[in-house]
Amino acid sequence: MTRCVALTGGVGGAKLALGLSHVLAPDELLIVANTGDDFEHLGLTICPDIDTVLYTLASIVNPETGWGRAEESWRVLEALDTVGGDSWFRLGDKDIALHLTRAQRLATGHTLSEITAELSQQFGVRHRILPMSDRPVRTMVTTDQGELPFQEYFVKNRCEPRVSGFRFEGIETAKPHPNLLKALKDPALEAVVICPSNPFISIDPILGLPGLKSSLEDCPAPVIAVSPIVGGKALKGPASKMLHELDQKSDATAIAEHYDDLLDGFVIDREDRELEDELSTDTRRVCVTQTVMRSLEDRIALARDVLEFGAAIRASR
Amino acid sequence: MTRCVALTGGVGGAKLALGLSHVLAPDELLIVANTGDDFEHLGLTICPDIDTVLYTLASIVNPETGWGRAEESWRVLEALDTVGGDSWFRLGDKDIALHLTRAQRLATGHTLSEITAELSQQFGVRHRILPMSDRPVRTMVTTDQGELPFQEYFVKNRCEPRVSGFRFEGIETAKPHPNLLKALKDPALEAVVICPSNPFISIDPILGLPGLKSSLEDCPAPVIAVSPIVGGKALKGPASKMLHELDQKSDATAIAEHYDDLLDGFVIDREDRELEDELSTDTRRVCVTQTVMRSLEDRIALARDVLEFGAAIRASR
Repeated sequence: MTRCVALTGGVGGAKLALGLSHVLAPDELLIVANTGDDFEHLGLTICPDIDTVLYTLASIVNPETGWGRAEESWRVLEALDTVGGDSWFRLGDKDIALHLTRAQRLATGHTLSEITAELSQQFGVRHRILPMSDRPVRTMVTTDQGELPFQEYFVKNRCEPRVSGFRFEGIETAKPHPNLLKALKDPALEAVVICPSNPFISIDPILGLPGLKSSLEDCPAPVIAVSPIVGGKALKGPASKMLHELDQKSDATAIAEHYDDLLDGFVIDREDRELEDELSTDTRRVCVTQTVMRSLEDRIALARDVLEFGAAIRASR
Repeated sequence: MTRCVALTGGVGGAKLALGLSHVLAPDELLIVANTGDDFEHLGLTICPDIDTVLYTLASIVNPETGWGRAEESWRVLEALDTVGGDSWFRLGDKDIALHLTRAQRLATGHTLSEITAELSQQFGVRHRILPMSDRPVRTMVTTDQGELPFQEYFVKNRCEPRVSGFRFEGIETAKPHPNLLKALKDPALEAVVICPSNPFISIDPILGLPGLKSSLEDCPAPVIAVSPIVGGKALKGPASKMLHELDQKSDATAIAEHYDDLLDGFVIDREDRELEDELSTDTRRVCVTQTVMRSLEDRIALARDVLEFGAAIRASR
């Protein structure tokens, strides 16, 4: 009985996913992670968003960065330099152990969703984390330096190239995971939450999966996005810079416009309360609350607010 | 101008290869490593014999074990247990860095020989280390517990199952590396040295490559094996146990019989000098010297002895 489907990228989205996991039982929440950031590196398949959600829910995430593992060491990375290996993507030793385990499972024919479920169990995470698809989708960033694979843009080039667009390689033949489609048809579903993640690179790969947008439109539960932009700035990552380079306003209104008709509800921070009227339409309600999540209590409070907002939208129909 | 081709497995063979590298210039020595021990593990291709030779020639091998790297750490291995990964094969952090680098190169279409040459350069090893073939060959061990992939027999089951035979998967379609075939035709070639490695699992995969035995028979240089059995015992590894289980005598004579007509010369330790007459035939000469290599000086001395023995055989023809 899935009451809530949460669509998420990495760090910011994972915080809200953690909050939701404190409010909802394991079978009531389905966390769907972007895999457009995944990439092949050192012969491994690295899944940054899945792993960030996994580490966050397992309470083993590095609290300072929001990604990677706490109490991490870097022995392999140090040695990579001495053997002529690629060390630009920072992989800790514990992190590598997970990537190797995943590589072994992938090589023996297991699906990414099966492996994610196994790893979740291994870490004692009972809430369901689902890759958006078991088929690979790879985000490519169109920039003034040519088209770059996402992690080369994001990590290797530190988001410096000027962005003019995105392409999601493989998305035409990828399929939304069947468990996601099933959850969207669940009569018990109360809300689809688009977490405060980067719309271009964390959420659009999910929304771009064939048939997913129409499944969301047909879904009786309200679709609610939490703005990743607060006070005209992204709390983390290149969302503001991207909005600017794409000639869009760099505030929460750009996020609402980006998701357009898909949204039944939009959650903004108190700091942006002056945008409330502008953002409210006949079909889109706005909730003003604290969206900046500094503590676990903040994460849980925002999760409650979003779910109550969903209930209010449903009640008003 | 290749003066010497050395066929080798891991630890014992690598010691003699190191000795030869001190006596011969880089272009005079071609070290050909067994790849039958290679295996796929954690999504990586692990090449134990190549790496042992590489680490040995780079003087970064663990001096206590003879394999793996000195001053190694085990962070990834420790973490593998906590993520449900396979930790039975002991991979150190520095070692993993090399395997990841190799995995990346293999994934982007480089051959094992190209990668081995790159890694050698990275480690400052100027003598040529060549995988016996760029096509995969995988040693399978027939045992009383069924057929086991080599490393499962060797490491996971600590050589405990009783051996009745060997199969080299993929060998029919593998080809000896062209540089090996070319070296065997080099008029400058003075000796082919079969290093003191396990004949069944380190040397037979090389000799079993299609066409290699006839290339060795046609080769004008003498073929000389150094016995890995001294005083009825293998200096390292399961050779004695295997000889016993295969109902063969467990002394140096079994090694000479194993290589049969291939040998023009056979090198045994002084401890086995009473076998000299028994081992000498019309076509096979015997050299008695110190084959146990404890120090670098021992390795160099044995290398000189073997090369001088080769010169003596050629002179007597």
